[in-house]
Amino acid sequence: MALDRRIEAAMAQAVAQGQGGDAPARLAGALDYAVTPGGARIRPTILLSVALACGDDRPGLSDAAAVALELIHSASLVHDDLPCFDDADIRRGKPSVHRAYSEPLAVLTGDSLIVMAFEVLARAADNAPDRAVALIGALARRTGMPMGICAGQGWESEAVINLSAYHRAKTGALFIAATQMGALAAGQEAEPWEELGARIGEAFQVADDLRDALCSADELGKPVGQDALHARPNAVRELGVQGAMGRLKDILGGAIASIPSCPGEAMLAQMVNRYAERMMPGALSASPVRARA
Amino acid sequence: MALDRRIEAAMAQAVAQGQGGDAPARLAGALDYAVTPGGARIRPTILLSVALACGDDRPGLSDAAAVALELIHSASLVHDDLPCFDDADIRRGKPSVHRAYSEPLAVLTGDSLIVMAFEVLARAADNAPDRAVALIGALARRTGMPMGICAGQGWESEAVINLSAYHRAKTGALFIAATQMGALAAGQEAEPWEELGARIGEAFQVADDLRDALCSADELGKPVGQDALHARPNAVRELGVQGAMGRLKDILGGAIASIPSCPGEAMLAQMVNRYAERMMPGALSASPVRARA
Repeated sequence: MALDRRIEAAMAQAVAQGQGGDAPARLAGALDYAVTPGGARIRPTILLSVALACGDDRPGLSDAAAVALELIHSASLVHDDLPCFDDADIRRGKPSVHRAYSEPLAVLTGDSLIVMAFEVLARAADNAPDRAVALIGALARRTGMPMGICAGQGWESEAVINLSAYHRAKTGALFIAATQMGALAAGQEAEPWEELGARIGEAFQVADDLRDALCSADELGKPVGQDALHARPNAVRELGVQGAMGRLKDILGGAIASIPSCPGEAMLAQMVNRYAERMMPGALSASPVRARA
Repeated sequence: MALDRRIEAAMAQAVAQGQGGDAPARLAGALDYAVTPGGARIRPTILLSVALACGDDRPGLSDAAAVALELIHSASLVHDDLPCFDDADIRRGKPSVHRAYSEPLAVLTGDSLIVMAFEVLARAADNAPDRAVALIGALARRTGMPMGICAGQGWESEAVINLSAYHRAKTGALFIAATQMGALAAGQEAEPWEELGARIGEAFQVADDLRDALCSADELGKPVGQDALHARPNAVRELGVQGAMGRLKDILGGAIASIPSCPGEAMLAQMVNRYAERMMPGALSASPVRARA
């Protein structure tokens, strides 16, 4: 099955279980609203690509890991959009959850999606509880404190920001989770996969900075100029557009060079190149990235 | 070690791990602020009591389960206090987290505590990953949707409330988690322990309704009259004070009668009686409860 169909089928199944029984109807509706239709599903796609590159000997567990990761990402979007953070009216081209449902239901939607992520992994443990525990530990580490996306968002409440810790936690953490969980689901060690995830995360951050600076709200389906508005660090403001483009290519070259030796190594390099093309804001798209020596 | 010291030591260790490394300082501070000093730690005390009654052959896992449950409870208090829910200024006699730190940090504190709960369990899995997975599944089920405390809170956004589903999810869920996780941590089945948790949860709800109606804000360390203010269901409004007291005793008798056969059965009955005495608002406290025939 194509990766995107694997992901959507597994997502739909997870959300349906959260909506079962005597669930309160509006919160049940908000769960589905928050995760479908999804964005590019980049993180679960990377996760499944790594799992496949490592043999994917337990596809049910890989699917659960992909779903869990996307649920955490979706939860973070719902909470980041809240009035006390970005106060965003629009997400993925439609009203944000708190606009469509209410602020209480948006808080509860985020909370429920976080819990659902861990529940999905526990339910998929079957006869590989050791792998499920490793996946739960890896996901929690990249989600909470002191180094997950909660920590990343927390840095925005500090008077002085540790920029490297901020970027690694805010954007990098879930990409590191993607590569490491892909490996863990297939029974491999997590550690050798950290650098690939970190580099993809850095690239994604620079690409996001470029889009925030260069694209229209219509093109993105969410407000632009948010970094300038909230005085957040941004690669375009620091390096200029050409400088940020050069940095993006360097990072992607490093990402390809960091791929651990595995049966699907070449396939993964192609995946990074595909993302490189998609990351570039339309008019700036350039030739494929080569691995740095 | 006495139960309360076991719980506090394990809580402190969990929070310290969430504050390590390059953590943003204010969010790190808010985590500690939200969980210490704690309330009565009723849920983890029940959990460890059940674990002990079942043999407590893996005390490290029982401690992790107790901590995970209390972290989820603490997270729910932080989020319930937010301006979009109860808008509570005071919790446990001090400013609520969003008052002391800010609303963004309160949202992130709740999120981080939820994640930490599952991380603590994953970290304690050691050579019993099957039990850890069962604990994670049980905790998630009683926390998220469709039947955990998130669902319970979600009912308050419905035009028509299913009262039995509401109470069971809002208050009962974490007491069911307490008894079931205590059994699971000690290697026992969860199912026979559901009724005890459900009954203690019902009793707690009625006792809370009595306190909300009869006590002062100073006595409780939080605002009173909240149920009337938010038009929430309340046993005192439905049954009167004496009616609610009678109902409380009936429920506790049922709780004692429901205790599954185990080495610590008598000790657990004593525990329920101790809670019965503590649950009664001061002046109304009465003689010990006997098991219903």
